[in-house]
Amino acid sequence: MLINNILFASPMHNELEILLKDKEVYQRKQFRFCSEENVTTEDYKWADAFVSFKRPGNFLFENIKWVHSLGAGVDKLLDDSEWKKDVLLTRTISSFGQKISEYCLSYILRDTQNHEKYSEMNVKNDWNPIPPIPMHEKHVVIYGTGVIGQEVAKSLSYFGVKVDGVSLSGNANEHFKNVYSSKSDYFRVLSKADYMINTMPLTKDTKLLFNTSLFSQCTNTVFINVGRGESVDNHALLEALDSGNINSAILDVFQEEPLPKKDMFWTHSRVIVTPHISAVTTPEEGLDCFLDTLYTIDTDRIPSNIVDVEKRF
Amino acid sequence: MLINNILFASPMHNELEILLKDKEVYQRKQFRFCSEENVTTEDYKWADAFVSFKRPGNFLFENIKWVHSLGAGVDKLLDDSEWKKDVLLTRTISSFGQKISEYCLSYILRDTQNHEKYSEMNVKNDWNPIPPIPMHEKHVVIYGTGVIGQEVAKSLSYFGVKVDGVSLSGNANEHFKNVYSSKSDYFRVLSKADYMINTMPLTKDTKLLFNTSLFSQCTNTVFINVGRGESVDNHALLEALDSGNINSAILDVFQEEPLPKKDMFWTHSRVIVTPHISAVTTPEEGLDCFLDTLYTIDTDRIPSNIVDVEKRF
Repeated sequence: MLINNILFASPMHNELEILLKDKEVYQRKQFRFCSEENVTTEDYKWADAFVSFKRPGNFLFENIKWVHSLGAGVDKLLDDSEWKKDVLLTRTISSFGQKISEYCLSYILRDTQNHEKYSEMNVKNDWNPIPPIPMHEKHVVIYGTGVIGQEVAKSLSYFGVKVDGVSLSGNANEHFKNVYSSKSDYFRVLSKADYMINTMPLTKDTKLLFNTSLFSQCTNTVFINVGRGESVDNHALLEALDSGNINSAILDVFQEEPLPKKDMFWTHSRVIVTPHISAVTTPEEGLDCFLDTLYTIDTDRIPSNIVDVEKRF
Repeated sequence: MLINNILFASPMHNELEILLKDKEVYQRKQFRFCSEENVTTEDYKWADAFVSFKRPGNFLFENIKWVHSLGAGVDKLLDDSEWKKDVLLTRTISSFGQKISEYCLSYILRDTQNHEKYSEMNVKNDWNPIPPIPMHEKHVVIYGTGVIGQEVAKSLSYFGVKVDGVSLSGNANEHFKNVYSSKSDYFRVLSKADYMINTMPLTKDTKLLFNTSLFSQCTNTVFINVGRGESVDNHALLEALDSGNINSAILDVFQEEPLPKKDMFWTHSRVIVTPHISAVTTPEEGLDCFLDTLYTIDTDRIPSNIVDVEKRF
């Protein structure tokens, strides 16, 4: 596929431009860089390829043959709009799995190592040797057995955590003890889970997947959401926190981002809000993956990071 | 070696007795159980073996041929007193390495994942996406390349952390990028270390090892002490915190334990005190290791967990 004119529309367009200037490809192709808000109709008409985190309001396919997502998720690029037939969609695959593993592990260890309790003891000068809980006594259920879910499972397994997975298919995977299908039999594993981690992309199957009916299967479970905010029924989550089905929630993604100042999650004593940082694409990583994908397309091969627009991942 | 009468003196003597009653050996040997404070002279005269965390004030070797430490450290059993020639000393080897790894990792991830910053943002309802720092950008120096140090090194290496070691000998070890000798060349590695972890036993070489001269080589380093409190010059540590050589300290062990109510470490804003819990021996683990060692001794073999009384580890 012939790609000559490449349009970058992103909050990090300056950093990307600086990095790209040092690359050989900068001499061979035409590039334009701007923020998502400033793309013009003329830009869309000019572009063969569009690189961004999301689809701007004025987006037009025009002659665009390839869209590349700077993030791992593509829901903001697919939007609810029609996708033009034969336009290739690819996404960034990077060290997201490792980043998200470190994020999840940090909050699980915060719990098992009693950080909060010791912090209270420090305030009271109180020596009370409550022992930590070894990780191998914990049971974690990960929603999503793709690249990210697998990496999280691998890290947790290193510490002897019992890790089960939930996926659409329920197909077995080496990093999970069991994999349950999200369509049928996954409920029975939830009652035993100490932690439930959502790593799933936003699709019609995962929209509001974490709802009253799902939370009601949990018993004092910690819920970590590093997938998408739209997968959670917020009202159901607040109720599950009240009822004790959910012990606490660590939320990195929300239906509306930035999370509005007045949102209840900010002040809930058993909710930790983090500002969508569990898997940040750095300009260097974003560019690396973009260049790899461009090279693959230029040499008429099929990129491994291609997205099935129907499935939305 | 013939061991018949075994004296357990420990705060967990009740739990140990309950567990032992289910074992076959309980029928074949004589056991006595009490707290460290309640051992009598008659008990010492009766015993072939003494099992404890520390040497009670009224301790007498009498006919004791074997002393077994319920903890990994033996400094409290060796004390500064004379050791009777030919009395065997063994120590508990258990999952201490894994436990201490989880402890250390929890505090490193607490840092790299900005737990404290996000917690402040939660209070202010402030969405400010400061990205976490990937573990692979961090450099950790571990004092002690024994079983525990190696396990910590292995866990950190899993996440791509650059791990150097410091030991008496400076001998290379597969889990460390470099190992420096604590006698000579280890100073130059300290200026680059983000974290410095002490896992060393208390010996004449490690007593007050962490002193003004050592801390002065550090630059904004986080100090984690899971070894022994007596290895640290507390005054030097407080000065190093003031000067910025030490960024913050996570202390699990102290010269005096429980840490006195009035100790400055409790209230220092850049010190976290934990009550000697990084590697707790559970009764089950303590008993398992004791039984293994007893069986080895009963069958006239040399236990792998034997302690060199001269070296004190």
